[in-house]
Amino acid sequence: MGVNETVAKPLDRLSDMLAPEMEAVNTLIRTRMESRHAPRIPEVTAHLVEAGGKRLRPMLTLAAAKLLGYGGTHHHLLAATVEFIHTATLLHDDVVDESRQRRGRPTANLLWDNKSSVLVGDYLFARSFQLMTETGNLRVMEILSNASAVIAEGEVLQLTAAQDLATDESVYLQVVRGKTAALFSAATEVGAVIAGATPAQVRALYDYGDALGIAFQIVDDILDYSGAAETIGKNTGDDFRERKLTLPVIKAVAQADAAERGFWQRTIEKGDQRDGDLDRALAILSRHGAIEAARADALSWATRARQALDELPENRIRQLLAELADFVVARVA
Amino acid sequence: MGVNETVAKPLDRLSDMLAPEMEAVNTLIRTRMESRHAPRIPEVTAHLVEAGGKRLRPMLTLAAAKLLGYGGTHHHLLAATVEFIHTATLLHDDVVDESRQRRGRPTANLLWDNKSSVLVGDYLFARSFQLMTETGNLRVMEILSNASAVIAEGEVLQLTAAQDLATDESVYLQVVRGKTAALFSAATEVGAVIAGATPAQVRALYDYGDALGIAFQIVDDILDYSGAAETIGKNTGDDFRERKLTLPVIKAVAQADAAERGFWQRTIEKGDQRDGDLDRALAILSRHGAIEAARADALSWATRARQALDELPENRIRQLLAELADFVVARVA
Repeated sequence: MGVNETVAKPLDRLSDMLAPEMEAVNTLIRTRMESRHAPRIPEVTAHLVEAGGKRLRPMLTLAAAKLLGYGGTHHHLLAATVEFIHTATLLHDDVVDESRQRRGRPTANLLWDNKSSVLVGDYLFARSFQLMTETGNLRVMEILSNASAVIAEGEVLQLTAAQDLATDESVYLQVVRGKTAALFSAATEVGAVIAGATPAQVRALYDYGDALGIAFQIVDDILDYSGAAETIGKNTGDDFRERKLTLPVIKAVAQADAAERGFWQRTIEKGDQRDGDLDRALAILSRHGAIEAARADALSWATRARQALDELPENRIRQLLAELADFVVARVA
Repeated sequence: MGVNETVAKPLDRLSDMLAPEMEAVNTLIRTRMESRHAPRIPEVTAHLVEAGGKRLRPMLTLAAAKLLGYGGTHHHLLAATVEFIHTATLLHDDVVDESRQRRGRPTANLLWDNKSSVLVGDYLFARSFQLMTETGNLRVMEILSNASAVIAEGEVLQLTAAQDLATDESVYLQVVRGKTAALFSAATEVGAVIAGATPAQVRALYDYGDALGIAFQIVDDILDYSGAAETIGKNTGDDFRERKLTLPVIKAVAQADAAERGFWQRTIEKGDQRDGDLDRALAILSRHGAIEAARADALSWATRARQALDELPENRIRQLLAELADFVVARVA
């Protein structure tokens, strides 16, 4: 997913407001990543869970439940569930992408091996289902198991859509909903459900998470072409080298002349990449204003996220969630 | 898991008795392995699901429910759940073991790639949780999510226990419970639970599945050293080449003299294997009667499986389950 979570202040303020709850979630995460028999499991998990992540997704679950005045503790279980699903997908993604770096550190598949990443990911998936089952709430189990299926489907779709210049913006949106937005929207939706929200409120928090996740991923894809390595925790051009068709490239391909089309066919479809190709790709993106157009899309999704909140009670958390939507896109503003 | 499922007649007779139910399960499996967006998913899944498997695990679920007179349809959902969990673990196992053959055919990771196997496996895990959620029965969700965690934990444990001559029979049993018996016992236990069984009956069917799974895996591990390639659907000596410490080797190591210990250290711990080493391993196993001792253990687990059935109503299905326990070990009798 390659998502940069050093989003600025609203997330920190949410963290402060939700600190006692997040502490409970962190305790759950630490307890449930243990394994009596296989010490490799907490080693690998801790490498990811305790390093650099801002816990954005579990925070969304806590925030959604709190926004609606939930006074129980089941949102802790759900927040830990969401973080475990996220961590499992990161482990498997890094195997699939053969990544060597995440959040500026070596990946688990590099430090241990692909086997450990696959199996520890499976363990965390199973743990996540145990956690959600403990809520005894069938609706949240439905939402989270559906999200898990959509995530895996999105990843498989990306496997085949990557390297195919016919991939258009609607396929891109499907991939992004799968790889990123499905877990964001599930995170906020289950927070609402566990709080006993009305159907309109559940829908609003689903829409917020969905739009926020899409904005978030578009920004990430933009930064892959325009960010500094220290900001994005990986190198510029990784998506290009991995021949992923992300939004900026899709927009440029749609406007390509014959020479540019030949360039994309050679570098993305055939994977024949040479020195200077990344610079040429950047020049083509610039010529068509592809980065700016993608940024406009991200801003529009952030606006949709903010607007979805109109359905919900006005309070401090709602305010922070609205600011969070703006901050997610501020990284490319 | 490398399990050979060409178990003889009792399974065929169970199949006949449960044919209409199994047809419903097969329909569910076919429907739920579809993906609207990613055709790669049903391709990869069908390669495994529709090829050669005897559907032993889902059959156990159907049999357990029927044995207790269950008249509903939720056991279909659970049987499909169990088959999806099994298929997902096979896909991931073949990636982890870098296997090239399963059931006498090329593996999915060879025909497609590791990426597809990892992600399609994840999709099937998610699908399995969707299916079990549809029963609305929290207890079966608990059992099956626990089993999934135990399976993954067993696989990780095997990663580290493999290549370590200190692995003893109790660690072996833990690995086997994880990689094989956990799903057998979950399959029979959820069949009992969904049928509204008494706690003693639930326990009996759990014990039956547990003992059957252990017997099954010991037999599989024996055949890896003593079976013909056409019987086991893979080559003799795969476990030796993969440096797995299975029961026959553990028994031989426990009785090794200094020269033999050096041999096991070189071949299993260091992985320095040469021409003729497999033959020498077989000679050492034979010298210590390690195959015979492992076979005696398998027979004893089959007996425990049969005895567990004493708690249950006497009927045709109970009779066939008892015969199944004998047939599982008959492959090495």
